[in-house]
Amino acid sequence: MFITFDGGDGCGKTTQILRLADWLNQKGKEVVMCRDPGSTPLGDAIRNILLNQRDLKMSSISETLLFNAARAQLVKEIIRPALEQGKIVLSDRYLLSTLAYQGYGGEVPLPLLQQVGAIATSNLLPDLGIVLDLPLEIAQTRAGKRGSLDRMESKAAEYHRRVRQGFLECARAEPDRYVVIDASDSIEAIATAIRAAVEPMLV
Amino acid sequence: MFITFDGGDGCGKTTQILRLADWLNQKGKEVVMCRDPGSTPLGDAIRNILLNQRDLKMSSISETLLFNAARAQLVKEIIRPALEQGKIVLSDRYLLSTLAYQGYGGEVPLPLLQQVGAIATSNLLPDLGIVLDLPLEIAQTRAGKRGSLDRMESKAAEYHRRVRQGFLECARAEPDRYVVIDASDSIEAIATAIRAAVEPMLV
Repeated sequence: MFITFDGGDGCGKTTQILRLADWLNQKGKEVVMCRDPGSTPLGDAIRNILLNQRDLKMSSISETLLFNAARAQLVKEIIRPALEQGKIVLSDRYLLSTLAYQGYGGEVPLPLLQQVGAIATSNLLPDLGIVLDLPLEIAQTRAGKRGSLDRMESKAAEYHRRVRQGFLECARAEPDRYVVIDASDSIEAIATAIRAAVEPMLV
Repeated sequence: MFITFDGGDGCGKTTQILRLADWLNQKGKEVVMCRDPGSTPLGDAIRNILLNQRDLKMSSISETLLFNAARAQLVKEIIRPALEQGKIVLSDRYLLSTLAYQGYGGEVPLPLLQQVGAIATSNLLPDLGIVLDLPLEIAQTRAGKRGSLDRMESKAAEYHRRVRQGFLECARAEPDRYVVIDASDSIEAIATAIRAAVEPMLV
């Protein structure tokens, strides 16, 4: 089973992934956690370009291709082998983030993103995609508390408004795959909602 | 006018680009030279991942997406603006190299490469593509003389044989765009052949 977590920065993905992994482990499931971009040496090198170099000029198309280059390696090196071994894979971000950030935020046409995404993942979609939705003001306060913002986080508020809209619209377009959870709720309440979405899928 | 130079490593692209640029300058043309991947800060960062890190695990799809991420930035930041200003752009490698290396060499399906390439360049093709063709043995001797091989150069001989075949087949499929020149000839003879291909296109 392949479960992805998407949402704006500061929405609590990392906390919730760890909570869900604990819960699945307690049920005797083998869990592999990864983050996209990242989790492979190539992915980390690309992640460094994408997030840490704030002054680098980068077109939305280049950004899209870079995210998907990292993703292609992640799918091949980590996700597919783990799924083939019957493990549950939890990914911190996946294709939906590209649609929201580069599509809605960066205004790259969605069909083009879907094309590139399908190529990068050879059509591997999550069985369940958790979208943690947070009002913009709360997200920004949380992200700010972590210290300096990375290249994606430091884009304008209007960009982040479009990104949030993107997550919601994409999730609503595929209700059998994506579940939107209110991330302004308490950590415990969110974890409960996520477990409720995952439980029916466990064999 | 947009002129590209492709061919196996050691085929003499760099030398010939400088020769052609000199000749065009003497004719009063403004010339911009670039290399793909590279020629932008983002392109150089990506080039560093692609060529300098020999031990990095990288799938052919990731490689394709990385080359095209660099290319997208190059087209946007350098090539299109120069063409709009009426300059002649000479690029050291371009789309054809992706078809030959990742397609014929890495066995990524060609339609998929064409899709990604079209997205990265928003369909910008060269007006003239020079393909410098060199028998494998000569190419390897020349590349070896430069010192240590980079990540692409160090792949197996069979890979490079397929790459050469790729350059030739792709060039023959579009004879109005691509000219194949025998790169085992003398520098002067090659330069003359290139000028003969370019001259009819000058206004």
